[in-house]
Amino acid sequence: MLKIGLIGYGYWGPNVARNFQALKETQVALICDQDPRRLRLAGENLPQARLTQDPREVFGSDVDIVAVITPVFTHYELASQALKAGKHVFLEKPFTSTSAQAKRLLDLAAARDLRIMVDHTFLYTPAVQKIKSFVDQDQLGRIYYYDSTRVNLGLFQPDVNVIWDLAPHDFSILDYVITEKPLALVAHGQDFFGQNLERVAYVTVYLENDLIAHFNFNWLSPVKVRTTLIGGDKKMLVWNDLEVDEKIRVYDKGVSVDTREGQYNLLVEYRAGDMWAPRLEHREALRAGADHFVRGILQGTPIVSDGQAGLRVVRMLEACNQSLRKGGKLIKL
Amino acid sequence: MLKIGLIGYGYWGPNVARNFQALKETQVALICDQDPRRLRLAGENLPQARLTQDPREVFGSDVDIVAVITPVFTHYELASQALKAGKHVFLEKPFTSTSAQAKRLLDLAAARDLRIMVDHTFLYTPAVQKIKSFVDQDQLGRIYYYDSTRVNLGLFQPDVNVIWDLAPHDFSILDYVITEKPLALVAHGQDFFGQNLERVAYVTVYLENDLIAHFNFNWLSPVKVRTTLIGGDKKMLVWNDLEVDEKIRVYDKGVSVDTREGQYNLLVEYRAGDMWAPRLEHREALRAGADHFVRGILQGTPIVSDGQAGLRVVRMLEACNQSLRKGGKLIKL
Amino acid sequence: MLKIGLIGYGYWGPNVARNFQALKETQVALICDQDPRRLRLAGENLPQARLTQDPREVFGSDVDIVAVITPVFTHYELASQALKAGKHVFLEKPFTSTSAQAKRLLDLAAARDLRIMVDHTFLYTPAVQKIKSFVDQDQLGRIYYYDSTRVNLGLFQPDVNVIWDLAPHDFSILDYVITEKPLALVAHGQDFFGQNLERVAYVTVYLENDLIAHFNFNWLSPVKVRTTLIGGDKKMLVWNDLEVDEKIRVYDKGVSVDTREGQYNLLVEYRAGDMWAPRLEHREALRAGADHFVRGILQGTPIVSDGQAGLRVVRMLEACNQSLRKGGKLIKL
Amino acid sequence: MLKIGLIGYGYWGPNVARNFQALKETQVALICDQDPRRLRLAGENLPQARLTQDPREVFGSDVDIVAVITPVFTHYELASQALKAGKHVFLEKPFTSTSAQAKRLLDLAAARDLRIMVDHTFLYTPAVQKIKSFVDQDQLGRIYYYDSTRVNLGLFQPDVNVIWDLAPHDFSILDYVITEKPLALVAHGQDFFGQNLERVAYVTVYLENDLIAHFNFNWLSPVKVRTTLIGGDKKMLVWNDLEVDEKIRVYDKGVSVDTREGQYNLLVEYRAGDMWAPRLEHREALRAGADHFVRGILQGTPIVSDGQAGLRVVRMLEACNQSLRKGGKLIKL
Repeated sequence: MLKIGLIGYGYWGPNVARNFQALKETQVALICDQDPRRLRLAGENLPQARLTQDPREVFGSDVDIVAVITPVFTHYELASQALKAGKHVFLEKPFTSTSAQAKRLLDLAAARDLRIMVDHTFLYTPAVQKIKSFVDQDQLGRIYYYDSTRVNLGLFQPDVNVIWDLAPHDFSILDYVITEKPLALVAHGQDFFGQNLERVAYVTVYLENDLIAHFNFNWLSPVKVRTTLIGGDKKMLVWNDLEVDEKIRVYDKGVSVDTREGQYNLLVEYRAGDMWAPRLEHREALRAGADHFVRGILQGTPIVSDGQAGLRVVRMLEACNQSLRKGGKLIKL
Repeated sequence: MLKIGLIGYGYWGPNVARNFQALKETQVALICDQDPRRLRLAGENLPQARLTQDPREVFGSDVDIVAVITPVFTHYELASQALKAGKHVFLEKPFTSTSAQAKRLLDLAAARDLRIMVDHTFLYTPAVQKIKSFVDQDQLGRIYYYDSTRVNLGLFQPDVNVIWDLAPHDFSILDYVITEKPLALVAHGQDFFGQNLERVAYVTVYLENDLIAHFNFNWLSPVKVRTTLIGGDKKMLVWNDLEVDEKIRVYDKGVSVDTREGQYNLLVEYRAGDMWAPRLEHREALRAGADHFVRGILQGTPIVSDGQAGLRVVRMLEACNQSLRKGGKLIKL
Repeated sequence: MLKIGLIGYGYWGPNVARNFQALKETQVALICDQDPRRLRLAGENLPQARLTQDPREVFGSDVDIVAVITPVFTHYELASQALKAGKHVFLEKPFTSTSAQAKRLLDLAAARDLRIMVDHTFLYTPAVQKIKSFVDQDQLGRIYYYDSTRVNLGLFQPDVNVIWDLAPHDFSILDYVITEKPLALVAHGQDFFGQNLERVAYVTVYLENDLIAHFNFNWLSPVKVRTTLIGGDKKMLVWNDLEVDEKIRVYDKGVSVDTREGQYNLLVEYRAGDMWAPRLEHREALRAGADHFVRGILQGTPIVSDGQAGLRVVRMLEACNQSLRKGGKLIKL
Repeated sequence: MLKIGLIGYGYWGPNVARNFQALKETQVALICDQDPRRLRLAGENLPQARLTQDPREVFGSDVDIVAVITPVFTHYELASQALKAGKHVFLEKPFTSTSAQAKRLLDLAAARDLRIMVDHTFLYTPAVQKIKSFVDQDQLGRIYYYDSTRVNLGLFQPDVNVIWDLAPHDFSILDYVITEKPLALVAHGQDFFGQNLERVAYVTVYLENDLIAHFNFNWLSPVKVRTTLIGGDKKMLVWNDLEVDEKIRVYDKGVSVDTREGQYNLLVEYRAGDMWAPRLEHREALRAGADHFVRGILQGTPIVSDGQAGLRVVRMLEACNQSLRKGGKLIKL
């Protein structure tokens, strides 16, 4: 039985605690939060867990895993202490505030043979798992573009821009689903209130093999949109995460281009076929993620959203800010 | 009665001819096309019109207006001859291949006191007219962003990229609806077939007053999308041009930000109110546009999509290509 | 080359004329309408056709087919004269005002070996053809119900109720697609303006094998709905005729019931699988129907919407009125 | 502080308990269920509540209110004992299995001055409250029809047909929103498995003032639909309960009929105006209902879904079964 020590029982913490508690291989032994009201709530939800306001108590305890569910600027400090104390670490996304921090945590973990998992929950949803399987089975063929829109009337974050708030989802999905490596990216955006924190932003990523990815982030949209288009030469798909039952629609549509004629007389053929919406399971992604992490620790199996994956996402987030600060400069990855 | 000479009876020419013919102030006197089959069709549709394969016959005739409904690379040559022959000119969009050509045509027209109209048909749709009236009445308040998606499985153009094919619509609408002036733009995109013709492209425009505009163009989308979001501090709207009855939805939603506290403690208030879909007329935009042009000539009234407007759009299209050729450089306008 | 004489060049007549004219085996030789303005329009659209205001000229002419595109109360008189004059007959739906009239027309046609086709256009749409093929291939399995909603803010007909206006579509589709025979039906409805003409009506049809069909007709709906659900034990489908691209969605969903246990402990299993939208051709149904009729005449092949089919629909329409007049009495068919 | 004794901690019981517990005027003192596992769950969720398997313990206790959240066939027995013991009663819908039982419970309550509330939760939703306010303010004008579709792939109930399962929602809403009294109704339906339990059913209700209501119930639909159309001569509305944000859409559309001309030349005018979606609160209806009941008891204010309302709904359910048994006979109410 693995013991979990959880730091940060705010908005997301209760979900993490509930899901680890529900696994038969783990139990939440210790919960830490500076806010006494949150601690009281933790006590009601998980009566068997010990409570504390002092993170050091977690590091000094006999827990096997420390779950860090706190704001990103605290991740490096808390995770490094946990690792030094010999604990496996589960962190809320994004992994860290800088890629340098991420690398140091990876070194710490490697030196102690400890595992790190970043909570890129979307990777464990039935929808993303299905898309990944399509790509792995080459059902889409050569992929031309990946185009995501993630907009809504969102909560303004006091300390990060819309990219750091929303992009970790999309960047981790891109990193997981698309095998082509990202080569460079560019970000454009706008703050409207003189705080130098972009509330809307547009990111374009150039990947290997002429694949292009684009992301539309907006905290000021009257309507909520969660739509991703992936266009391949065999098939194309639309993932609308707001659909209840048919989140993924696969279109047997496309364009086949015959370039033998040379670029001035291109033979283009259009294909319009059936649409197909695969059935998706209804299960909680965080449960699947927690289970995946625990199996990774117990059986030494690979972890999809491990520290390396977390680092790749942080690199992209960093590059976005660099590009924004330099007026839309293309940043090599 | 104004006489029209129409050059180019291809895909769009018949619509232009039919609408000018339907106006009581105009009649189509002469139709020119190099393709005898198209000419035969013209003869069937407009029995009273004279037919020719030679544009010079149009310039030498007594028509008052020459309508140029041909590929863009021919616009300058045909329009300049028409103007030199003392004819008013109606041109298919985009106005010209370069802003230099556009300026020369404007000079020719000014010297002869002739009128030019570019066929930016969308400006005459009930939907765009309604949006324009909202902005003029300050119903949206300060506008934060303008975000348009125009994607579908589109016909590959042999000679232009997806921006020159689709953006004239959006750029002309932005130019018409938004009072803030565009300051600079940047374009990113990708060709997938080694022809240096982008099939997907993303354009970001920076305008006065921190207004940002963004455009998503794609010839390789399995689904057709024609959606524009406009976010203001009083109201926000979504224009979905594929809706039959409720193309425009106005949301009494927004965020009001109190910055007096200084940038580190921003007071943000969210507003979520009613949604409202104004009724729109069902009428043919091209008819309204032709009528608008004719009244402009007969009464000397301003023409919304005149040569100056056409030039502003061509400048933006030129800037997009410059930006693409320079790897996403920000181009001042 | 078969010659067509068309009587009635009102709202629908031009479409019928255009489509017969477009077939290589037929030409519209004669057009009859009492309204001179409609005749003038006919002359413009089909310059080669002779024009007349007198139907007798049509019957006395050498045309092979008479198309009767007039209000239903005139069908019997015009069609019987056409048949007596030895002409094949194409009639607008519904076939006749009474089943007695329909039978007499069938007898006239049989005696002269002439063909009758009723213009149940929907049967020739790609959507209905696809549904028919699903049923013929037993893809839906045992069919439990057929449920259609056909509502909109419709034009009030001065002389017929909403059932006679809208139901011919649905009844002809039911008759074509569903192999089980209708046994009885019941109709309920309401007029709101003291004219004894129902503006909303609901029809339930009991068919063989416990199959039930239901129809919701409404001339006073703020929204237009054209949706049919067909539920089988193998698959279920939703046909939304207002969808542009995905009119038919087939659901691998269902309930399998094991009744061996006896009726008090029924074993019910629910199945929820993929959804699939077959690609449909984009073609004009009336063209396909006209072609089908002409081939029927020239090659003696069966006609899907022949007079017998027309009679079956009229019987159902008659039964609806009987049921309405008798306060919702169940009428045997 | 009012004490609640809750009988039946199955699917719905926990929601009722949680909401009464959340009110400051009430606490759940006693929970009764025959299933020990359900009792254990109750103990975990409401540690302060006493637990029992014997309903008599509830009646003998000092609770002020008994909540009966059990299958309908047990309602009469449990509620009558509760009333005899001097308890106010909150019952799951439908009120009782027969109107005779309902009347006896009403008499028992009247004799003891006790209050009864039936859990017609929908009446306390923001959507229904909004529709009620529209009708009360005469915004819809004269109402022509009320048309509800409530279909999905539903759980087969072992003992009741689809009407008794789904119609209590719609009938209670009709009873609450529409002021015209129902005069008669008719039901048609079909079982497919030889159990004499309709799985699909269609109910038509005739009300005063030529108002007609129609209900489409289906346990075998591949798609879930929860849509109600209400058509008036001033405005029409569509309530789609599956919409997240815009459940109600009000259409300034209609038909105005001038009958002075007499029934053979009716002057009909069509109106097509704006659409408007009023903002609705996001709150739990059961909480509002529980609060409404408690205020009714403490302040003697009327209860919207009191026993009389419950009885009117049971009468309609009874009439549906009578109509079904008599082959679709019209049943007077």
